[in-house]
Parts: sequence; structure tokens; C-alpha cells
Amino acid sequence: MVDQRRRTDLAVEAAQLWRESGGAGALPGVTQEEAVREGFQVETVRILNQRGAEALGKPEGNYVTLSLAGLARREKDAFGRAARAVAAELSALLKLEPGESVLVVGLGNRAITPDDIGPRAADHTLATRHLVEQVPEHFASFRPVAALAAGVLGSTGVESGELVRAVADRISPARVVAVDALASRSLSRVCATVQLSDTGIVPGSGVGNARFALNQETLGVPVIAVGVPTVVDAATLAADVLAQAGRDNLDPDALRGAGDGLLVTPRDIDQRVADLAKVIGYGINLALQPDLTIEDIDLLLS
Amino acid sequence: MVDQRRRTDLAVEAAQLWRESGGAGALPGVTQEEAVREGFQVETVRILNQRGAEALGKPEGNYVTLSLAGLARREKDAFGRAARAVAAELSALLKLEPGESVLVVGLGNRAITPDDIGPRAADHTLATRHLVEQVPEHFASFRPVAALAAGVLGSTGVESGELVRAVADRISPARVVAVDALASRSLSRVCATVQLSDTGIVPGSGVGNARFALNQETLGVPVIAVGVPTVVDAATLAADVLAQAGRDNLDPDALRGAGDGLLVTPRDIDQRVADLAKVIGYGINLALQPDLTIEDIDLLLS
Amino acid sequence: MVDQRRRTDLAVEAAQLWRESGGAGALPGVTQEEAVREGFQVETVRILNQRGAEALGKPEGNYVTLSLAGLARREKDAFGRAARAVAAELSALLKLEPGESVLVVGLGNRAITPDDIGPRAADHTLATRHLVEQVPEHFASFRPVAALAAGVLGSTGVESGELVRAVADRISPARVVAVDALASRSLSRVCATVQLSDTGIVPGSGVGNARFALNQETLGVPVIAVGVPTVVDAATLAADVLAQAGRDNLDPDALRGAGDGLLVTPRDIDQRVADLAKVIGYGINLALQPDLTIEDIDLLLS
Amino acid sequence: MVDQRRRTDLAVEAAQLWRESGGAGALPGVTQEEAVREGFQVETVRILNQRGAEALGKPEGNYVTLSLAGLARREKDAFGRAARAVAAELSALLKLEPGESVLVVGLGNRAITPDDIGPRAADHTLATRHLVEQVPEHFASFRPVAALAAGVLGSTGVESGELVRAVADRISPARVVAVDALASRSLSRVCATVQLSDTGIVPGSGVGNARFALNQETLGVPVIAVGVPTVVDAATLAADVLAQAGRDNLDPDALRGAGDGLLVTPRDIDQRVADLAKVIGYGINLALQPDLTIEDIDLLLS
Repeated sequence: MVDQRRRTDLAVEAAQLWRESGGAGALPGVTQEEAVREGFQVETVRILNQRGAEALGKPEGNYVTLSLAGLARREKDAFGRAARAVAAELSALLKLEPGESVLVVGLGNRAITPDDIGPRAADHTLATRHLVEQVPEHFASFRPVAALAAGVLGSTGVESGELVRAVADRISPARVVAVDALASRSLSRVCATVQLSDTGIVPGSGVGNARFALNQETLGVPVIAVGVPTVVDAATLAADVLAQAGRDNLDPDALRGAGDGLLVTPRDIDQRVADLAKVIGYGINLALQPDLTIEDIDLLLS
Repeated sequence: MVDQRRRTDLAVEAAQLWRESGGAGALPGVTQEEAVREGFQVETVRILNQRGAEALGKPEGNYVTLSLAGLARREKDAFGRAARAVAAELSALLKLEPGESVLVVGLGNRAITPDDIGPRAADHTLATRHLVEQVPEHFASFRPVAALAAGVLGSTGVESGELVRAVADRISPARVVAVDALASRSLSRVCATVQLSDTGIVPGSGVGNARFALNQETLGVPVIAVGVPTVVDAATLAADVLAQAGRDNLDPDALRGAGDGLLVTPRDIDQRVADLAKVIGYGINLALQPDLTIEDIDLLLS
Repeated sequence: MVDQRRRTDLAVEAAQLWRESGGAGALPGVTQEEAVREGFQVETVRILNQRGAEALGKPEGNYVTLSLAGLARREKDAFGRAARAVAAELSALLKLEPGESVLVVGLGNRAITPDDIGPRAADHTLATRHLVEQVPEHFASFRPVAALAAGVLGSTGVESGELVRAVADRISPARVVAVDALASRSLSRVCATVQLSDTGIVPGSGVGNARFALNQETLGVPVIAVGVPTVVDAATLAADVLAQAGRDNLDPDALRGAGDGLLVTPRDIDQRVADLAKVIGYGINLALQPDLTIEDIDLLLS
Repeated sequence: MVDQRRRTDLAVEAAQLWRESGGAGALPGVTQEEAVREGFQVETVRILNQRGAEALGKPEGNYVTLSLAGLARREKDAFGRAARAVAAELSALLKLEPGESVLVVGLGNRAITPDDIGPRAADHTLATRHLVEQVPEHFASFRPVAALAAGVLGSTGVESGELVRAVADRISPARVVAVDALASRSLSRVCATVQLSDTGIVPGSGVGNARFALNQETLGVPVIAVGVPTVVDAATLAADVLAQAGRDNLDPDALRGAGDGLLVTPRDIDQRVADLAKVIGYGINLALQPDLTIEDIDLLLS
């Protein structure tokens, strides 16, 4: 069983922690695969049954982790390749028929940069539901998509989870895609990784507080989560800094509480959040509207 | 009966049109009063029965029009006086008990300046509902308020009316306050007037297209509308320009259709919309949280 | 000689007015050509000498007008084609050697939508000057470009022209590219046309007031102007509306003054300004950094 | 002499470090006073001569530190009191005659939240220079103020220091006020303190890299710096976290380098930066335009 004191939202890190905690041999009820998509590394963790769920502390389902570090290095064609990689992995999880409608929600608080990845990704998502209905002569071939930057609890007074359920109840989409910030235990994964899963999401588990789960059980339709680790907690940082300095081998849990109220992020967090939100938004658009190119989206979103 | 071809969202203009159309004597089923509040002119039209409703082409209820022209002239203390005047008139229509909750919705499209008055007013509204629940030690004395910039059809794919109904259904407020842009037939009233009424609203009747009415019938609670005329139509403008030039006395309806697709606004529309949205937001805050001063709100909204 | 009462910032309209005013035969000292670039119509007016300058009321030089109406119709590939067309025409006027530096300035007032085209285009321009100096290992192959959204007189208290001269004096670019809003006399050209010229610009001649010319004489280097007509004056509108209605054949000048203080714009002005600003920004990037693709720019600007 | 390895931009912390480093008795060439202004603590450090400058590692002059912690606690009237306290201390340093003009510059990178305090404060500053010149009938009694959010190196390609010098050369103000982010060694001072000094500033010493000093020597007029500590470095954090956990007494310098590339900020950094920027902007307005009230500024800035 995973060491519960060590917090991570990434299935791939949970599997690693299981091994570090002394787990020998194969993880029970879990399979892992590696692949390369558009030049980026893809790790897939499948939790097959209850035993696997207990071992990793996560619900049964598929977790796909894309490593997009090349984006920050501005590698050649990195934007298009990253958006197409997100689109391909997302399509595989969505399993949509033509014409089925989708609700895309960007969770998180706009006023906290590392928590703004969801709302910014929603900003880059093409909302087409009204066009399909009102201008069918031009948009009949588009999939109906509604997009909601839902997480603005601070400025609306309404919980993200409440708002999404209210809207999903009314518009009855075939699938929900929920984009949110996550917490990672590794500085190197922060703002460099995207996890897609078909198990839904608990809004705010990364930066804020959990309240309302969004999943098949609560919304009645499959919920595909797109998560980006954008923060690491201060206690983990302190332990990492000491380890790098060769001075200590403290467990972060020994420090738990000392750095509460602090955010530790990469210095270029705003740029990285902007990059990843755009890649995810474009990836969603390419997955949902497969006839469009990136340049088409450039114009439709301008 | 009002000349239906001449379009106005303001009850006070509808009454004037009735007279211009040859209505003699008193308007049947309608009363009108004038007063001064904080130095601004207040005109109240009360539609008392079905006869009045037919004469003015508007539902029964109270329509209060504040003339805030002094704001654009930057008169001394104009901001505080205007916000307090809005607050006083709004309170009289809201008839709230302490602790009753309110949903404030800003209707309109953020991407069209004259239609952005509602969303911007919502931005200036203090959302307190989550604080009252989560931090009662500091916020128990606040009225629970949820605030929603609802009208972003173009970027969400969901109709404003749909979104507001979905949220109102879930959070069950005691009242809804809906801020929206209106159309006026008079250039002098554009961006210089606020109409408050207790009859609800049809989103987008000013700039876009009507779809979902928001009123007691559809939401189950009283809906107080706060409307600001921000546009005048091109045909009305053409007739007005000609009349000023002394060249013609055309009826705007003769020109209907010729200027479709055009917006006619004051040159300083962005500044005026910014001013009025702030006055309305602060007025709503003063009406809903009567213990706060303008400086308190300055800090809470920063 | 052109009828000076009829105002236009477009050379192609000035030539048309010369003909409407009874000019027979060829315009003296002026040549005109038509071509197609990336599927868009290109009209080039060359004012060859002082006689041509007097006839059209504009300085000697080259004026290239691109008709981008297809953009608003969301034609296939319209974004990329339009950006490449702007880039090609701009390159021909810039006549740059590799490594020569450029200052791009976006003129206009951010708080007035039709006047925000320049600042928004500057937002879409890649500023590379600091990178070329500070990170030569990655950016040595980039042209040094500085980008300035200069026109915020209202929020800075400094005239655009003053600010641009101050910056140009200090950084000594080889060329200046200045993007600004223009006025057109034709509703059909508004927000559908881009004029490029090598004669410099008078900031604010479109929407605000002229103050400081930006040209070879004042800045000491060639100034390429990129102008977009985004407004039409109210008097022109009134005359056009009447003509369409078949009711009158008034000259706009007869109405001059009656509609002062009003802006007449397309209803979807915000979308059109956003589209064109993005096309111009990307066009500038493609012209200045010819090794980049649109997807590269997507990432570098995210 | 101050331990140079320990970095702080605050004179009051430098004095404290001198004592911690074993400095006995009075600091040579330095005086310190405490006072209370509008309910907030004010500590003034005066560096009187070269000996004091060497002891604290800062230029001769006056350093006034306001502790505004009450702001984050939303104390009654905190906004108005804080703005007036900033105004009073700033006025004392500015020593302005009526009518003398001022250039206010907000340094820092808009795209990094803790570095955006300067640009945001400039956004809240009333720019009046153009109004005094163009509309003297209304604005003759206003002091001419130009306001510049100068620090957008990443988006302009021009160094803040270069840009400010270019503009100051051209408009020749009597004083420059420069707002910038600082680094502190104390978590408790971060986003809770404002330092005003009459010694000028080195842009980016807090978050980015120093390049161009702004002071009397480089600009030819007195430069009043308004600095807000918004970050603490990761090594200091690690040492602090360990000390709080009772596990170590490491000197941060032993860890130097291990946490490079990370930002450590309060979790509510965006809200705190927004609060302080507004307080500073309003404080500057009250200092420069003493006839205005906060409500007047509310309207003029809307």
C-alpha cells in the first residue's frame, strides 16, 4: 500500500512510491506501459481492480502521463506536436461518436497563477454548442461543445463542483472533460507533465480544498480528467533542497506543517502555465473537432 | 398603445412615445413620479394593471430611472453619490430580510464593449456566499451573495438564461439581481441612465437576441433588473443626425434595415461602461451589505 | 485635387474620390496596380511625385491595400494565408538586411476598442531584442525586435509620438513599424482592409487627434505604417443609410458635426479587431523572423 | 559590516543582520526611529554617512518601512488608513512644490505575479499630464503626472531602466517615483511591508536581474523608491522550515544554489499583490493630488 503521508496526484508517482516503500515484484492489479507519441514520452498506468486501487490509493481506471518537458525548451515544432499528442491520448479515453456533445470545464482559481491552468485551458477551448444550434448552415459539421471556466469560487461564491453539476444537469453532455491543477512530489514534473485519466476528478485537490467530486457517479456521464502538476509543497521542497545540498536525508513528513501557507513554484510559472494551458486547449479542440487544423483554431479563437 | 415599431427598453421612453403617438390625457393604468436622490433625477413609472402594460408594451411593475449624467462630467463626489443612489433605489425594490441570500448575475457578452456592462458590474460585486459558510467567525454578519458573469454565450456555448436558471435552481437564492445592457432611442440617455425594475429581464434584448426570460415565473423568486442603455440603433441615429442638420424629418422605421450590423455608441463608450459598471457594482454591494463603506469595498475587491 | 472635406486615410479611397470629383483620365504622378496574394486582393497606389501627392493629399511613397474580407467569413486557411500575405507585402516595403533591428509600435488607446488594434498587434509581436543580447546561444539567429504598445496616452499621460521618439532615440532601430487605426469612408472596408505604406504615420489620425508624426524625418529611419480602418464617421453613415434606403443623396459634409462624439462600428467590432490584430502581429513576426512557422509563433507567444 | 552573503533589500533587515552578526552598541553612521502612522508601525532608518552605508551595504539616505499586516486581516478602515499612511510618508520624502511634475514608474514583469506589484501600482496611478495640458479648464489645479508600467522586458525587448531613462529625458519631471518588488529574508515581512526611500532603485533586484540603476545620478532628479518584498528565496525558506521544525540550525548560505529557479511566495500572493498595489497607487495619488479623496480617485480610475 502506498505511503499515505506522501502526497501525489500522479498515478505514475504513486506507483514509484509503492516501490520505494519496499513493494517487491509486480504491483498487484496494476499494469504499466511506456510509449512515445509525437516525440514525447507517454507512461500509462492501468488500475485493473480493487487491489490495484488500494495499492496506489486511486480509483480503478486508466492514467496516461505525457512528459512535455521539450515545450519549455522551445524544441522545434514543440507546440503542434504537444497539442497533437494531447489530442491523440484524449481521443482514446473519450471514445466519442460523431455529434455527441461535450462539456469542457476549467477548474481552479483564476487569481492564483498555478491554479489558473484549468480556466486558461477553457479559454483556449472552442465553444460551439450555440453555433451548431443557431448557425447550422456553417457549423452543422462541428461537435457541440460547451466550455466553462468554473472554478472561480472566490469571485462567484459558488463551488466549482456545484456549478459544474448544475450546468451538466441542464445541458446533458455525453462526456465531461475537466482540466485542473495537481500537486506533484517531484520538482522536475512540475509544469512539465500532463496526466489524462478516465476516472474523474476532485476539484481543488491540487491547490485548494477538495469538495465536490466530478465523476461518472456524480454527473452520470464519463468524466475525463486532464491534470497538470503546478505546485510542490514546501515541506517536500525543504527536504529536496537539503538532499541536493548533501546535508540531510529528512522525510518531508517530519517537516509537515512548517511551510503551510506557502506556494513553491518554478520561477517562470506564469509562462509555463500559459504554455501548457494553450497546448491543452488546442489538444482538446483537435480531439473534439478532428477536421480542424491548428491554424484554423488560431483564427476561430482570436 | 405604444408604436411597436419604435424600440426602447426604457419604461420612461415608452411613456413618452405613447404621448408622441397621440395619447391624450393620463396614461391608463400608469403612474409617474419624479424625485431627486443624492443630487440625481429619479423618474418612477408604475404599471399598475394590464391596461398599463398594454399601453407601454411592458409587464406590470415598478420602473425606476436614475439620470447619472453628472458622472461623466466628473462632478464632485459623483461616484459615492451615484453608488448610494443606486443602493437606495435597489433596496426599495429588493425588500430583503437580514440574512436572505442573493444571486447577482451580469448578463451580456464580454467581447462587445456596450454589452459588457453586466459582466463588469458582476466583477465589482462582492461574492460572500462561500465566506459566510467557510469563515463564519469573520463573515457571519454578511449577507450570502453569489455573483455570476453569466452572459458569455460566445465563449461558453451556453445561453445566459440557461446558465442562470441552472445556478438559481441549485443555490436557491431569495432574490436575483440581473444587470444587463439595454437599447435606448435617445442618444442623450445612452450611458447616462440606469433603469431598475422589479419585473425581471429578457437577456440580450439590448444588444443580442432574446431567448430566456429571467423573472419570478421562470426562477421562482423575484428578479430585480438593473439595465443600462448603451446603444442606439443606426436607423434612429440617421434620423437624429438628419433632424439636427435640419434636413429631414424621417421616421427611423423608414430606414430600418439599412444600418443593420452596425453599433452606434458614444466615442468614450469604454470609459462610460467602466464608470457605470463600477457604480452599479458598488451600489449593489451597499444595498446588500449595508454595514460596509465604499472604502471597505475598495479593499475587499482589490 | 481631392475633395478635402471628404476624409479618408486610405490612398485607394483618395484615388477613387479624385475620380468621383471629376478627375478625368490618368491621375497625374500616380500609378495603380492590382494583384492577388494568397487569395486576397492587393491594390498598390504609388505616389511618384509632388503632383501626385497634391492630387491625393498624401505624401509621396507606396501604399499597399490588402482586402482581407475572407477572414471574417472564416474561409479555409484564412488565418495563415492572411498572415503570410501581410508578411510578404511588409517584407517588400521593409527592405531589411539580416540582423538589422526593428522597433514595432502599436499606436492607439487600449480603452477604445476600434483604437486598440495597434496595441493588440504589438501584443502579438515577438520581442526578441533582449533575448538576442542575453541568450545568444539560442537566439543569435533571431532579428532583434523591440515591441511597444505606445498609445496609452490616457493611462500614461505621455503622447504616443513622444514615447516612440524617446525609445527610438535610445535604441536606434534600423526600421520602425507602426500599427494604427484609420478612418475609412466606406462601411465595407471597415475592419476588412489593411493598408501598408512606407511613408510613416500621424498617430491618432483615425480615432483621436494627430500630434506627432512618425516618419523618416522625425525618427531618422524609414517608418513602415500598417493601418486598419476601424471606424466610419457618423455623418458618412447617415448619408450611406439614406442612400441605401433610397431616400436621399446627401453629401456627408452637409451633415458634418451632427454626429460628433459618436462611434459607428460593425456590431462585431471586438472580434474583428481581435482577428486583424492577430493577423498583423503574426504577419510582422513572419516578415521579421522568416525562419519561424505559425506554430512556432503560437508557442513563443503563449 | 553586514554579512554580504545574506541578502535583503530592506534597510531595517540589514540593520538587524548587522546586530545578529555581532555588531555591538550603536550602528555607526545610522539612526533608527519608530513611530505609528494611521495605526500602522513605521520604522525609519537614516544612513547618515559613508560608514553607515558600508555597515548596511546600502547608499546614504532615508529608508521608511511601513508594516501593513493589518491589510491582509481586513481590519476596519484598513484600506483608507494604509493609503493615507503611504501618502504621508511619501510626501515627506518627495518635498514637492505645487505644480512640479512627477513621473511614476512601475517596474517589474507583468507575467510574474510577485514581480507585477510595480506595474499594477502604476495602473492605479492617475496620469494627468496630458489633461493638464489639453483640458486646463478642468485640470489646471492638478499636478502633471505621467505613469509608466515600464518593466515589461519580456514583452518589449527593452530594459526597464533604458525605457525610464528615455522617457525621463524627454519629459523632464521634477521627481521620479519608482515602485518595484523586493526580496526579504523574512517570511513574515513578505507582502506585508512597504519600504520608501529617497535613494533610488536598481530595477529587478528583487526578482530579476539588476541592470540599470534609477537614481539622482542617472536621471538627474531625485528618485523616490517604493519597494514591496514579495519573495523569499528557497534556501532561506528551507532553513526557516527546518528551524521551525526544530531539526536544524542551518545557515541559508549553506544551501545556496539548491533551490535556484524556484519562487517561494505566500499562497494568497495574487490577492496580496493586488491589495498592496492598490494601496500604493492610491497613496501616490493622495500624495501627488492632495485635493482628491479616495472616492474621487475611485471614479477617476474606473
